[in-house]
Amino acid sequence: MSSPAQDRPPVAFEPTRFEKVLIANRGEIALRILRACREMGIRTVAVHSTADAEAMHVRLADESVCIGPPPARDSYLNKAALLAAATITGADAVHPGYGFLSENADFAEMVQDHHITFIGPPAKLIRSMGDKIAAKQAAVSAGLPVVPGSDGAVGTEEEALDLAAAIGYPVLIKATAGGGGRGMKVATGPDDLIEAWQTARTEALAAFGNGEVYMEKYLAHPRHIEVQVLADMHGTVVHLGERDCSLQRKHQKVLEEAPSPALTDEQRARIGAIACEATRQLGYYNAGTMEFLYENGGFYFIEMNTRLQVEHPVTEMITTLDLVKEQIRVAQGEPLGYAQGDIRVHGHAIECRINAENPVTFTPSPGTLGRYHAPGGMGVRVESGLYTGLRVPPHYDSMIAKLVVHGANRTECLMRLRRALGEYVIEGVETTIPLHQRLVQAPRFVSGDYDIRWLEGFVTEDQDDG
Amino acid sequence: MSSPAQDRPPVAFEPTRFEKVLIANRGEIALRILRACREMGIRTVAVHSTADAEAMHVRLADESVCIGPPPARDSYLNKAALLAAATITGADAVHPGYGFLSENADFAEMVQDHHITFIGPPAKLIRSMGDKIAAKQAAVSAGLPVVPGSDGAVGTEEEALDLAAAIGYPVLIKATAGGGGRGMKVATGPDDLIEAWQTARTEALAAFGNGEVYMEKYLAHPRHIEVQVLADMHGTVVHLGERDCSLQRKHQKVLEEAPSPALTDEQRARIGAIACEATRQLGYYNAGTMEFLYENGGFYFIEMNTRLQVEHPVTEMITTLDLVKEQIRVAQGEPLGYAQGDIRVHGHAIECRINAENPVTFTPSPGTLGRYHAPGGMGVRVESGLYTGLRVPPHYDSMIAKLVVHGANRTECLMRLRRALGEYVIEGVETTIPLHQRLVQAPRFVSGDYDIRWLEGFVTEDQDDG
Repeated sequence: MSSPAQDRPPVAFEPTRFEKVLIANRGEIALRILRACREMGIRTVAVHSTADAEAMHVRLADESVCIGPPPARDSYLNKAALLAAATITGADAVHPGYGFLSENADFAEMVQDHHITFIGPPAKLIRSMGDKIAAKQAAVSAGLPVVPGSDGAVGTEEEALDLAAAIGYPVLIKATAGGGGRGMKVATGPDDLIEAWQTARTEALAAFGNGEVYMEKYLAHPRHIEVQVLADMHGTVVHLGERDCSLQRKHQKVLEEAPSPALTDEQRARIGAIACEATRQLGYYNAGTMEFLYENGGFYFIEMNTRLQVEHPVTEMITTLDLVKEQIRVAQGEPLGYAQGDIRVHGHAIECRINAENPVTFTPSPGTLGRYHAPGGMGVRVESGLYTGLRVPPHYDSMIAKLVVHGANRTECLMRLRRALGEYVIEGVETTIPLHQRLVQAPRFVSGDYDIRWLEGFVTEDQDDG
Repeated sequence: MSSPAQDRPPVAFEPTRFEKVLIANRGEIALRILRACREMGIRTVAVHSTADAEAMHVRLADESVCIGPPPARDSYLNKAALLAAATITGADAVHPGYGFLSENADFAEMVQDHHITFIGPPAKLIRSMGDKIAAKQAAVSAGLPVVPGSDGAVGTEEEALDLAAAIGYPVLIKATAGGGGRGMKVATGPDDLIEAWQTARTEALAAFGNGEVYMEKYLAHPRHIEVQVLADMHGTVVHLGERDCSLQRKHQKVLEEAPSPALTDEQRARIGAIACEATRQLGYYNAGTMEFLYENGGFYFIEMNTRLQVEHPVTEMITTLDLVKEQIRVAQGEPLGYAQGDIRVHGHAIECRINAENPVTFTPSPGTLGRYHAPGGMGVRVESGLYTGLRVPPHYDSMIAKLVVHGANRTECLMRLRRALGEYVIEGVETTIPLHQRLVQAPRFVSGDYDIRWLEGFVTEDQDDG
């Protein structure tokens, strides 16, 4: 799976060794990055808003700089303040974490312009992958499968029938000017295609003053499967298997697992190879994630995330690779030092995102933590900056902890997760731990037979199964 | 390495499935066992002294029974109280943990007499391995190497010279009636052997009224290396590699690591095979540990521990096998289901025993815990029943937590351990965390070049290196 880059200039490169990294983030991921740096002997600079002065990563960092008040646009999104902090402290590199400026190509360029390394991929790839249309074009050019559909409007009944036969039923007819479900119809076979096509056109005309419709394959019960890739600057690319992130509520991932209970080894190897080849074609380096919808053996590219993902620990648990350290090593110019054949997957891992929210209404629940006690023991990993007495501010994303569990197989992992959830004590704010406790008992989740639409119903219907 | 038992009757055996296990222990190991049971869907009965009513494992157990006041002889060592608790609660099995009654053959027999399974090896093997002389004889019969020496007294100069030549220098001359170093001399070669032999005889006669001396090989700088074995009732035996427990203070292990930095793969495979063969010869089943002294490529059997060891987590971290679950599965009559070739060792693990003691004087420091915050993140495992507000009673062993760290290699493991020790907050009692922090920076420890005598000097001399 690895090969030397053939279309790049020969690299005459002495790997840098970072002495100091600025962590341009907050919360659990800032602590995660700090730990990796410390274990590599790299000094750390924490930045924080006035609301986060007492945050765990600020307390543990070698240096810290206050970069402004909440909300985030006045601090964590303030590029000038971050660059000033990096310059003043003499940081060699900036790790952006996820969210905030992690996929901001301008920021990446500004950092590099200041002769500071941005720990991530080349800015031009952050930019192109951040533009949905450009990303899809690049993906197609790089050989990634996308949802098949018409190139533009479908004008005649014959055209509709031919295209649907080529794509395969069910198909979705959508208004080109549409949105919100108006002018959108599903056809399950040739018998209802013409009616669907005509109804969609009529509705589209009525709703948008434009009767044009297009067609794409309809995915009734897709899963969200994403492939973790890792590439160095010297042309070596590996994938670290997939994560199944189908358990989502309002497009937010709630629980992730690896490997996916839905894939066969053959499918896993195939999509991994496709993702690696695309990574190579793109000239991408550092960690990246290709997100796909998956249904009935088919993979359909959604987007590429050009940064560390929230759910990266499940991949770490099954591969034992420390992804943040790998990101830093790549950014230092080091070769990965291993190839696809060296990657071994062992066991199963699940991550629960624990939010400071009411577990039924999902209303945010900021506040001051009372008793805090994290679960321990074999196969249990907690990623969190929480501690007794910490104020959880209302200004940011409500995710306050990740409980990550590893087991020899999915059954052990699930049993261990139940055990660990039962031990976790977080007082002073409401959390979504009760939701996770209900979820890990739900037969549909236990069976592994779920899709991206299932959790929404499970949550809102308060049903025990779906 | 695995083979069907050939000298046992064919087993017509339907594995039992325990529904309820009584945990005959306290502290971190009681919690460890509780977690394994819970992850297997087995209900748990905690027993506790009046001093431990608020212990974590008591709070988490499905049922709990108070078995008496401290000290341990009135509760955790009270066989009748434990059996009553097991009978009243209808437990199918008893897990003894380590210490207390874990190597008490009478207790194991009493448990079995009550038709309750003792989670451990056969009582007769607990008994024979608990008798130093019987154990050494059994070990020799089973093919384990022991420290070579004379069979009884060495009576003449010629005999002494011949024997020393056969054993190899240095040799130790010891009074057969001796103890405490009187009548004990080391000879480094034939030139000083006769003088040592004569001096030892003279001293022995003066000190004990008996001039008889014997001879054995002198190990100047031995390491403590122990091999974890695991065997089912059906004749399958595997070893899970070794642990290096050479860092001891007053014969108490302080920090353990696996694999040993001193062994080659060939030595590891050899001693593992020897331990497996001996386990088979003994007819042993369940988990067991063979302890050896190791010096210059030679292994010398000390004793076999017929129970779970305190330091079992380092083996779990490098093999990903859950030893407590394996013990339970074996006690249920299940076959291991894997053979030696299936055992994979990955990376490196270190365990620090954290005691409630002054880190310089080692005076016990019981008390009520103030702030308690365990380290987290990748590769960090905490085994502890501590929580804010818990009273650490003065009646028991001072070990209150184990910090276990895994890394891809020994260097990463060490770096991670330093990081984790720095995050660990335990207030209200003094702990040995500062000793571990000093130890993990000591060049001799970092180099891996230490023996069982080194830590004593490091601790008492307050030296930075040895």
